[in-house]
Amino acid sequence: MDIKSLVRDIPDFPKPGILFRDITTLLRHPQGLRYTLDSLHQKCEAEGFNPDYIVGMESRGFLFAPALAYQLQAGFVPVRKPGKLPSSVHRVEYDLEYGSDALEVHQDAFGLGDRVLIVDDLLATGGTAKATAALVEQAGAEVLGFAFIIELRDLSGRTLLPEVPIVTLIEY
Amino acid sequence: MDIKSLVRDIPDFPKPGILFRDITTLLRHPQGLRYTLDSLHQKCEAEGFNPDYIVGMESRGFLFAPALAYQLQAGFVPVRKPGKLPSSVHRVEYDLEYGSDALEVHQDAFGLGDRVLIVDDLLATGGTAKATAALVEQAGAEVLGFAFIIELRDLSGRTLLPEVPIVTLIEY
Repeated sequence: MDIKSLVRDIPDFPKPGILFRDITTLLRHPQGLRYTLDSLHQKCEAEGFNPDYIVGMESRGFLFAPALAYQLQAGFVPVRKPGKLPSSVHRVEYDLEYGSDALEVHQDAFGLGDRVLIVDDLLATGGTAKATAALVEQAGAEVLGFAFIIELRDLSGRTLLPEVPIVTLIEY
Repeated sequence: MDIKSLVRDIPDFPKPGILFRDITTLLRHPQGLRYTLDSLHQKCEAEGFNPDYIVGMESRGFLFAPALAYQLQAGFVPVRKPGKLPSSVHRVEYDLEYGSDALEVHQDAFGLGDRVLIVDDLLATGGTAKATAALVEQAGAEVLGFAFIIELRDLSGRTLLPEVPIVTLIEY
C-alpha cells in the first residue's frame, strides 16, 4: 500500500517557506492507519528490537507509541513537556531555532539497563529525538533504537542521534 | 486483571487539594497496557459501536484513540489545541474554571453523517468532551458515543454530554 500518497503537503505551515507533511489524511484512512501501524510493528521486529519500554514524545509520538508497545508486548512511557508529569522527573533542556525547550520523564519510569525504543511521527532536525535519548540515558536505561513514520532526509537529523538502528516508513 | 490498582494517586497535583489519578504507572506495565486496550475494544464492541472514525483529544486522548481505531477498523481524527492543525479547521470555544480554551478539527475530516466515537483518558467535569462533541456535530458528523479510561463520578461530567452510550473502564 502506498501510504506516502495519503500524506498531504501543506505549503507555508507553520510559517512561510515550510512545506508541512500532514499525516492526518493518512490516519483518517482506515486501511492507511492499519497499514502504518502494522508496517511499524513489522519493521521493528525485523530490526530485532526487543524493548522493555516504548517511549513516545508529546503529542504526536503519543499517536503511535502505545499501539506499538501493545504489538511488541512492551510497556509505554511518555516523555512530556515541562509541568505535565505529576511525580518526580528527570529533565533535559535543548536548543530550538529560536530559544530552548525542555522535556521530562518520570524518575521511576525505567529500571537500570532497561531497553528502550523511542518513537515519534517525524525525524526532522533530530533535536527532540536527541534530547529524548539523553533523557532515557539520564534515567539509567539503554536506547535500543528509534522508529519514525516520516524522515526528512535533507535535514540530516539522524547524524545527531546515537549509533543505534533507526526504522522509518516514509522518506522525503 | 485489576487495572485500577495500577493507577497511582498523586495528592495536590496540579494544585493543592486535587488528587491526580496518574495512568503512567498503568501504561508502563506491559500486561496493564494490553488489558486496558483490549478491554476498551471489547466494551466498545459490546456496546455495538460501529464508528467510521475515532476522535482523540490532544494530548492524552492520542494515547488510546489510534489503537482503538486500529482494533475497530475505523479511521482516526485528532482534535487539537488552536494553531496545531495545518489545514482549514472548525473551532469551538469552551469555558474553564478560570478563563476559556478552544479546540479545532480539520473541516474535511468527516463526511456528512459519518459515525464518530470520542475517546479520552479521563471524564472529569465533561467540559472537553462536550466541546469535542459540539465540534464533531459542527463538522456534520454524528456522535455515536464516548469511551474513557477513567470516570470521576463525583464530578458528574456525563450529565453535560449528549444522550449516547458512554464506555468507561475505571470509576472513582
